[in-house]
This record gives sequence, structure tokens and C-alpha cells, in this order.
Amino acid sequence: MVKIGIVGGTGYTGIELLRLLARHPQARLAAITSRKESGMPVAEMFPSLRRVVDLKFSTPDEAPLASCDVVFFATPHGVAMDMAPSLVRGGVKVIDLAADFRIKDPVVFEKWYKMPHRALDLLSEAVYGLPELHREAMKKARLIGLPGCYPTSVQLGLKPVLEAGLVDATHLIADAKSGVSGAGRKAELGLIYSEAADNFMSYGVAGHRHHPEIVQELKRMTGGKEVGLIFSPHLTPMIRGMQSTIYARITKEADFQKLYEQAYAGEPFVDVMPPGSAPDTRSVRGANTCRIAIHRPNGGDTLMILSVIDNLTKGAAGQAVQAMNIVCGLPETMGLEGVGLVP
Amino acid sequence: MVKIGIVGGTGYTGIELLRLLARHPQARLAAITSRKESGMPVAEMFPSLRRVVDLKFSTPDEAPLASCDVVFFATPHGVAMDMAPSLVRGGVKVIDLAADFRIKDPVVFEKWYKMPHRALDLLSEAVYGLPELHREAMKKARLIGLPGCYPTSVQLGLKPVLEAGLVDATHLIADAKSGVSGAGRKAELGLIYSEAADNFMSYGVAGHRHHPEIVQELKRMTGGKEVGLIFSPHLTPMIRGMQSTIYARITKEADFQKLYEQAYAGEPFVDVMPPGSAPDTRSVRGANTCRIAIHRPNGGDTLMILSVIDNLTKGAAGQAVQAMNIVCGLPETMGLEGVGLVP
Amino acid sequence: MVKIGIVGGTGYTGIELLRLLARHPQARLAAITSRKESGMPVAEMFPSLRRVVDLKFSTPDEAPLASCDVVFFATPHGVAMDMAPSLVRGGVKVIDLAADFRIKDPVVFEKWYKMPHRALDLLSEAVYGLPELHREAMKKARLIGLPGCYPTSVQLGLKPVLEAGLVDATHLIADAKSGVSGAGRKAELGLIYSEAADNFMSYGVAGHRHHPEIVQELKRMTGGKEVGLIFSPHLTPMIRGMQSTIYARITKEADFQKLYEQAYAGEPFVDVMPPGSAPDTRSVRGANTCRIAIHRPNGGDTLMILSVIDNLTKGAAGQAVQAMNIVCGLPETMGLEGVGLVP
Amino acid sequence: MVKIGIVGGTGYTGIELLRLLARHPQARLAAITSRKESGMPVAEMFPSLRRVVDLKFSTPDEAPLASCDVVFFATPHGVAMDMAPSLVRGGVKVIDLAADFRIKDPVVFEKWYKMPHRALDLLSEAVYGLPELHREAMKKARLIGLPGCYPTSVQLGLKPVLEAGLVDATHLIADAKSGVSGAGRKAELGLIYSEAADNFMSYGVAGHRHHPEIVQELKRMTGGKEVGLIFSPHLTPMIRGMQSTIYARITKEADFQKLYEQAYAGEPFVDVMPPGSAPDTRSVRGANTCRIAIHRPNGGDTLMILSVIDNLTKGAAGQAVQAMNIVCGLPETMGLEGVGLVP
Repeated sequence: MVKIGIVGGTGYTGIELLRLLARHPQARLAAITSRKESGMPVAEMFPSLRRVVDLKFSTPDEAPLASCDVVFFATPHGVAMDMAPSLVRGGVKVIDLAADFRIKDPVVFEKWYKMPHRALDLLSEAVYGLPELHREAMKKARLIGLPGCYPTSVQLGLKPVLEAGLVDATHLIADAKSGVSGAGRKAELGLIYSEAADNFMSYGVAGHRHHPEIVQELKRMTGGKEVGLIFSPHLTPMIRGMQSTIYARITKEADFQKLYEQAYAGEPFVDVMPPGSAPDTRSVRGANTCRIAIHRPNGGDTLMILSVIDNLTKGAAGQAVQAMNIVCGLPETMGLEGVGLVP
Repeated sequence: MVKIGIVGGTGYTGIELLRLLARHPQARLAAITSRKESGMPVAEMFPSLRRVVDLKFSTPDEAPLASCDVVFFATPHGVAMDMAPSLVRGGVKVIDLAADFRIKDPVVFEKWYKMPHRALDLLSEAVYGLPELHREAMKKARLIGLPGCYPTSVQLGLKPVLEAGLVDATHLIADAKSGVSGAGRKAELGLIYSEAADNFMSYGVAGHRHHPEIVQELKRMTGGKEVGLIFSPHLTPMIRGMQSTIYARITKEADFQKLYEQAYAGEPFVDVMPPGSAPDTRSVRGANTCRIAIHRPNGGDTLMILSVIDNLTKGAAGQAVQAMNIVCGLPETMGLEGVGLVP
Repeated sequence: MVKIGIVGGTGYTGIELLRLLARHPQARLAAITSRKESGMPVAEMFPSLRRVVDLKFSTPDEAPLASCDVVFFATPHGVAMDMAPSLVRGGVKVIDLAADFRIKDPVVFEKWYKMPHRALDLLSEAVYGLPELHREAMKKARLIGLPGCYPTSVQLGLKPVLEAGLVDATHLIADAKSGVSGAGRKAELGLIYSEAADNFMSYGVAGHRHHPEIVQELKRMTGGKEVGLIFSPHLTPMIRGMQSTIYARITKEADFQKLYEQAYAGEPFVDVMPPGSAPDTRSVRGANTCRIAIHRPNGGDTLMILSVIDNLTKGAAGQAVQAMNIVCGLPETMGLEGVGLVP
Repeated sequence: MVKIGIVGGTGYTGIELLRLLARHPQARLAAITSRKESGMPVAEMFPSLRRVVDLKFSTPDEAPLASCDVVFFATPHGVAMDMAPSLVRGGVKVIDLAADFRIKDPVVFEKWYKMPHRALDLLSEAVYGLPELHREAMKKARLIGLPGCYPTSVQLGLKPVLEAGLVDATHLIADAKSGVSGAGRKAELGLIYSEAADNFMSYGVAGHRHHPEIVQELKRMTGGKEVGLIFSPHLTPMIRGMQSTIYARITKEADFQKLYEQAYAGEPFVDVMPPGSAPDTRSVRGANTCRIAIHRPNGGDTLMILSVIDNLTKGAAGQAVQAMNIVCGLPETMGLEGVGLVP
């Protein structure tokens, strides 16, 4: 059994972790922290967990985090970088769902997250936790910086074609659409039902924090060659779900369908759809799956890649459990067999 | 392992059965029928089942139903009554999710379902499949007529207080609200998104088929005494979920909260909420749970009971799996541990 | 032309007032206040008003309220009672969309709104602004306390049958369902999209502020006889719209359909539907209309009344414009001819 | 007064026409046809029109279309081409909201609409009814082929920059997202609430009928030079609303914000937003407005244009009324002053 602590369990990635871990055959939840809700039973805040989770929130100081095997950070940015060092030194595997350990360049991090990085040693050691790219490194990692939701969908969509060098990497476009839960469990005016329902809009038009993260990883795929990406996110009136519609100019011909099928043949959580398909986000609702379809509009020189995930599952908590399975030497799919909730 | 057949798997109760049974440790899906889609892989119709279910739809004639241990009917009304008799005689346990074996009085059945009943012997033998009322009879049943979704929520809401004889059973009101999936996977104008979204309305105002079914079972709770029920359903713009708000005039004082807690103390799938609560339907989204809260508005002489379920899970396919567990002697909660998908 | 001021224009009743008044042939918007947004163009906050409203928000002190003909208060409770007295004394007609002047008994007001009433003289003078009940008094009023949304739908639903003394007024039930905009434009966690969408729940189970307001007015309909009401509100995943499903035990027989048709024959904004109907909320989306249907379930002794409105239009801002038309001697329907937005 | 007939009034463009025309000061509705619903009062099908429209549906033969000033076709494709010729010859102005008279090349028309064109003379005479492009020709037109919704949003988004020759017209991308009402009032499985809600997906990936229509008009903007367009539509869980996010590679520098502001300075229904904006679809809900914002992601060489409309208003019925105003010599904004319904 893996003894588990969760720091910051009151957000959507927190409750999604709880939903998944509560039914994971090798997971034992030992602690979940929330400074603000300390003492409150988790199931009082989230009645869906009544009879399932009987923990109470505790303060980070009280919580037996140091004796856990794995500690997840489902916190705002800036928390993990302060708490992770002592845990990691103590032999606890740390998986951060926030952005503290995603971006390798501390200058870029500070520019986008408006805070200096306070754990530079760990930053350079941390492994970027997209298993489909970094599985081997993750197996031995002490600290994993888990990808954001948009980066997961875009990177999985572009990996085969960038690694094969078949498209113009300097002019990529990712037109991405996210459900509202991607913005978190926050009392913000723009997120309330009467504002966000029956409405569609672009946001982050001046720049989005996921842009540098995506570019950093795409560059690994191109072997360090320049990457130019327009990342254009949109807010969509649904709770969960994310689609990235990616456009890339083809520079070298290939059987793209076959390329993708082969690239992901052994991947348990990436599903390349048959030619002509359009995956819908609900097909992955609550599931740890990325579905990808490959198109070539009008038979022209542009490749169009459709990549859908559940932003809270493969885009966050599911991927975190997948990472835990990897660092703990468990079967990678354990506890992640749940089928998408349709309808 | 239980060898399973599903007749009529292309509706919402069908896909929900597949979602649950695909991960049930003792279930082996042997056949799923659809006359119309015969030959099509199930996962082609429902991409959420890709890599999970590799069956194809077959015609009822081809399908090895007779060699199954359990056959579910997720068909329109009128199908099970024709096919069940030979299966039951052959030793197959039959669980009908439609209405063929719910209503004991064939005259009432014909009045509401516009067809004569064609399997009267089986009708009298069939057990009404609400485990919280008929668990013992279900254990030995050969044929189970599974309750409708509304009846499940109303009956669980009223059982403790009717059995104890504490309210006026002749003037009950169940003001019920259902998500749109309750109407099934049907191409009907009134169900399309642009009609049903951002809209709320009563329906079935001239009478609803679930009314006689509910009354039949409530009468068992009153020991055969007269039952008067206003059943008032409403269509709500959500996919899954159902709340029955039930009003009953108190005739005898009691500690109603305690009564409900005790009545359902041993029930794995009925959760009595603490005093002052209002359960939300999402807390049971995809879960086989009924949550109930008890109120007494203004401290007056009317009891208000809030009862929520997922109409496709505890209201249909989850309850069907629960019934299967019971008739097969498996632990009742097996394969039904899934936690509500929140958010 | 009527010179108009709006105090507190940043909420949903504020923007709905602006939408209606901007196209009202006799309205001239002179001022709109918001302490917090002072100086910001209204159309910057609400881009739907670009090229339509060119006012800026101003502070209440700067705004030429005293020279207006009519001032609307679209503020939180407690604001109008402080500002209205001097305006009224100065000859300005005041229409308060909040609760300050709805409840006649200051003790009841204080109990529910947690503040003492600070304008008792005006409170006793104020006219409760439901035109279908108090049109004559409104014509001469200096100050109007506009009904809440729930009270509007319940009162219009019960007026004919209570005035005629045909039902048991001591055991009325109003099972009401509201869209989320009824809760206002507020950054509250329970209102965000990911919490409120695809979800349904009761709220205010311990008591709702609209209860005493409704009872006060129902008592006028019964001629002062005791009124007992269970008012049970539910939160529905839609933006606008409200249905009250009202149950009343019949004490005296009548042709209820005819009673309602006659009672509302001359009313421009109350539409009694044909027998057997179920009005949908979208049929009044953005329209100043209340649609009512009368039913008698199972032909029994209970009357079921369905009453739908748009909570922001007939339930708030539309009714406010109707009140303005009345106090200003304009045709009552002026500026309120907009047709419900369907789909 | 303009005497008006509507052929095929039971779809969403039909009811939107009725909503707008019922309040148009110069419109008199004389006939509305539906073969299937002949004899039914319009307000029985659409209760939002109770007390507003008292017409009944009639068959096309009975309806006094020939004596109308203007006849709108809100029919499926293929109807107008048969009925329009005799009307036009009789002096009736015809405005077709379907596709019969949009595509000038009958071979292209037949390829995409699977029917030969049966009114070739009129096809060459018909004016493509986007006022911002063809206002002068429309003034004298006898027959107008109204643009589709997607084409409206894409063409208005690209017009200034294509006419000025500042971008690479051979590699344009329009990533478009539409609310479900764009698919019409049809009982199709993929459109029902339980399928389309809380879901997002691409569709038309093999090619969409609006593609040739858009390209035809973009070519007029480039002066006949080659146009290459990827048009990628997505289905979004909202009723009304459409955003086209358009990407174009810049070939010549300019002040694009200024270019757009000047290009649309005199247009009553095109609103260029301030720099840095992201228009939301709800800001045009029910309004005949197209809002456009111009961006240059990362300051690079790609222009990103956001263009939002209500697909039923500026994308269909509102534009039709605008066309009617133009052909009848009325003020272009008459009857189209309605403000977007927010929230």
C-alpha cells in the first residue's frame, strides 16, 4: 500500500484526486490538508465522498506528510516550492499538480507566475510528468512537476509529427477550448453560471501561462530547434472537457494516420481514432484518456490534429495518479480504469 | 464469473449498463443485441467504450442469450414480455429495465402502456426489483421487473414514514424534477438541445406512467391502505439527475430524522443526510446512491422529504447491477463502488 | 420624456433595466451610479450595451438624482431606505427593486434582513408594486417597493383562487424553481458554473426571505384570514426563468380555468394558458409576461397551478418599468413589448 | 407598410423572423406557410408568440404570397428555387435564407447540396445578401440569397484585411464554434440535449457546405486572386452564438486595429472592439451585431481575428430583416434595435 498525503485538497484537482485515489487498490489516504478548512470532514465539503472518504482536513503542520510515501500538491502556484524540499530530502516522492516545477527556466517562471522561484535545486532535478514523453525519467524521479491541462492536450497532439520532423515547427497554431472547471474552484465573477453559461469567448489573448510550458516541451520534440506557437484558449460552457484543434503546415509527406497509430500503439491512455473521426470531449469525461484524430483539410498542405482530454483527469488528477503508479512501480493503469461517463 | 447478455444496448440504460459491467469483477459480457445496429462494434457507437468493450451488436437470434446466466432487457416496453418466458424457463435470470414486469395489474398495465400484457404467468411471478423493499424476494427471483427512476426516488423517500404510519397517505405530493436523459436516447424535437437547454417546464400533466407504479408500491408500505398521490414531473436542463421533493401531512409525531437514519442504517446505497441538508443531484452523478434529507418547513405539520438519485444509475442501470448481484449471490455493492463525478 | 436615474447599476437587475430603458420611447437615462465603478463607461462593463448606452457610472453624490423624474434602486437591501427619503421629499418618484419597502412590518423586516428599518414613515407609505394587485394605489404612489421574483410568480398564481375563497389557505405549497441569475451577479462559490451546471438542488430549506413577503400579500387576498404556506425554492441550471408549481386543496368547487381567464382578462402581462398546457420558462425569456396554467391532478381535490416568469423581467426590471409607466401615466406596456427569445 | 409572407415558418430562422417582424414598425405579416402544420395557430407551436402573432400556418397554395411585397424563404434548401421564379416575375421581392441562391456556380452548388439547380436564370441575377459587401446591389435586387451564419462571421472578419491585400490569402484558417441552434430545429439524435450538452467536438471534418460559399466571397475581396481556406467548425454546448477565430499570415505591415475601425466606421451592425478585447457571444445574443477584435499573438507575423455573432440574428433572420429594410428603402436599422440579452 502507498501511504498518501494531499496538500490543498479543496479545489477541483483535489476532489478529483480523492475520487480516484479512494478507489485505487494500492492507495491509502493518510492526510489531506487545508489551512482554512482544518477540522472539517472532507465529506462535509464534498458530499459525493460521504461513506467513501472519512478523513478530515488538517493543517499542513499537523498532517503526517513526512511519513507518507507520496505527497500530492493540489495547491495554488508557489506552495509546493516551499514545502517540497524537506519532503523530498526525507524520502517522500512529491507530485506537484501546480506550475512550480514545470518550467525549467526560473526567469521564464518568474515572468509568468510573478514570483521568484525559491527552490532552484529541486527545479533542475524535477521531472516534467508527461508519461508519454518522460516515462523513464519519471520512474526514478523524486519530484514530478505535472503538466498543465492545455499542455497535455497540445503536446500529445504534436509529439509524433514534431519528433519525426514533418511539419513547420515555427508556425504552429493550437486553438484550444476548455470547460469552465479548468479555471478552478474559485469565486470569480467571470466564472459564475449566469456569466459563463450559454456563452463562448476567447481569453488570455494577451498571453497565457501555458504558452512557455508548451513551447519548452515542444522544443524537446524538435531536438531543440526553434518552435513558434500561437496558443489561443477559449472558454466553453461545459464543466469538464478540453479540445485542442492544432494546425501545422506539412513540410514532408508521410502517412500521418499510421505515424500516430504507431507512435501511440503501446500507450494505455492515448487513443488514436480511425480516419475521418471527430472525438467528443464527453467520451473522456472522468476518464484518463486522450483521444486524437488526424485530418488534412481539403487534402491540402496543413495537418489538423484534434486532441481531447478531460482537463481534470488526464489533464490533472488522473495524470497525477498515473505518475504515482510510475514512481511507485505499480501497473501504470491501476485505479485509472474508469470509463468515460456518457451521457 | 457471471455470463451476461444485454438485449437492446443502444439506449442510455444500455450504455450505462456497459459502463458498469465492463468494470465489474465478476461480470463477463457475452452478448449485446440490437436488431438495427447488428454487426457494428459497440465502441463505434459509443467511443467512450473504445478499448473497454470489444463486442459487436448482434441480432437477438444470433446472440447466445440462452446460455447466459443473466440477461438484462434495456429495451422499449413490450420486448421483454415476449422474450423473457423462454429464457426464464431455460434457467436464465432475467432483469427487465423496462416496464413490462413492474405493474402487477394487467388492466392497469394496458391502460398506461397501450398494449395487452402477453406474459401473465411471469407477471405474477416477477419480483419488483427495489432491493430496499424486496431484497429477500429478489434473492430467489427468476425474473425481476426493475423500478422506474421516478418510482425509485419517491419510494425510497416515503418508505420509512409510510411503513410507520405517521403521515396522511391519501394526500401525498411528489414534485419531481428530472434531467433530460430520463427521456431516453431518442430523436425527439422536444428533447433537442436548443429546446431543452436554459428552459424548465412541467410535463406529463395529464398523467404519467410512473404514477400507477408508485402507488402500487406505496400501498405495500401502508399495508394496503388507500394511497392518494399527486405526482408532478418537471423537465430540467441537465443530463443526469433527479430530485423528488415530497410533501406529506404529519398525522402522528415522531423523530423523523432518527426514523430515517434507522430505517436505512444498513443500506449501502441510501444515504440519509444530516438535519438541515439539501443534497444536490451532482453528488450522485454516476453513483448508485440515493441521498435523502428530511425537513419540516416552518416547524409545521408537513414533512418535506428531498430525495435525489442519478436517474441512469440508481434509477436504472446501477440498480440493475445491484439486482444482478443479489440474484447471483454476489456482494451487493460489487462493481458499484464508483464515486459521484464532481464537478 | 421621463428623466431617469438608476442607483446601483452593476447587477443583473441593473443591466436588465438598462436593456429595457435604452429602447423605451419615453425614457431618458440621466444617471447611473456605482461607487466602485465610478468613471467607467457602462458599455465597458456590459459590452452588449456598446453603441446603446453611452453613460458612465458615477458616484451617488455626483449623479443628478434629485433632478430625475424617477429613480430606480437596483441595490442591495438597505441602500434605498437611506437615500429614498430625500428624493421622495424632493418630488422624485422612487422605485426600489430591493426589499426595503416590501415588508410592512418592520419587526418582520429586521428578522429576515438582519437590519433595523431606518425609514419607517416611508415604509408605511410605500406601495407594494405588483400592478395586478395594487394598480390604483401605484398610480398615486411616491415610493414603490417592487415585489421579489418568487413572490411575483406565487402571488399571480394564487390571486384568483384566494380572492374567491375556494381553497384551503392554511396549507398552501409553492414548489419553486429558479434560474441562477436570481441569485444575482455575485462572485460566490456556489454560483460558479462548475458548481451550478448539470446540477439541481433545494436551497433556503431553513427559511427564505421571500416567505414573509408572500404571506403578507396572500393575506390581503384572503381578506386577512390566516395563511399557511410552504415555500420551497430550488436552484435550476439555467440563466433566467422561474416556475412556481403551486398546490392548494380545494374547499369549494368552481370552474377554475374560467375563473383564471376572467380574473386576468384585462391584464396585458398575465397569460392564462389553455387547459392541459404546461408553459415553459423560455416562452417568457426576456419578456415581461407571467404565464399560468391550471390543473387538477387525477381529477382530485387539489388544484395545481403552474406559474412561469423571467425572474429578471416580470420578476424584477420589467416589472419596474411597468411600475414606472404606471406612476408616470404612460401606457402600461410601453417599452415592454419585447417577445420572448426562443430558442 | 410592407406586406410580408414567410414560407416555412416552423424552424428557428422562422421563429426568429417572427420575433423580429412582429415588432417591426413597418412590417405587416400577411402569411406564413407550413404544409405540415397548416391550420395550426403559430402561437400554438411557439407560445412565446401568444398575443403577439395571431396568424395560422397555411399551405403555400392558400397563402397570399403573390400579393406580398416581400417573401422570406426560411425553408430547407431546394424550396426557394422552385417557388421564387413566379414570385419574382410577379414583382415580389424574395429573400432566401437557405442556400439556393448563395453559390453562383451551379456545379459547385450541386456538388455540395446534392441537387441540380433548377433556376439558373435567377441564380445569376440573385444578389448575395451581406449588406457590408453588397449594399448597393441589394438596393436594386429582386432576389437575395442570404449568407449562411458561418460565412457571415468569417467574411466580416476578413474583409478589411483581404481587400487591403495585407495577408496571405492562400493559407487562411477559420476555426469556428457554433451553438446548437445553428443545426436547426430538427429531431436528430446528435442534437438532443443529453448528447450535445456538456460536450464539445469538431464536425464536418470531411468538408462543410459553407466552405465553397465563403471562398467564393473571399475571392471577391482579393479581386479574384486565389484563396485557400481551412474552415473548421465545432459544435458548442450553447443555444445561440458563434465565434470564428481566424488566423492569417501577415504579408504587409499595417495598423490593423485602425484599418478595421475605419473599414467599419459607418456600419451600424459591425462593432470593432478596442485593442486587447475578447468579445463574448452573449453580448450579441438576439442582437443583429457582429463584434470583431484584432490580435497579434506574441507580436508575431500572424493576425488573429475574433468575430462573434448570434447565428440566428446577424447570422440569419436579423440579416434578413436588414436586407428587407434595404430592398424596401427603409432605414437599415429599423426593427433591429434590440439589445443583446445579457445575462
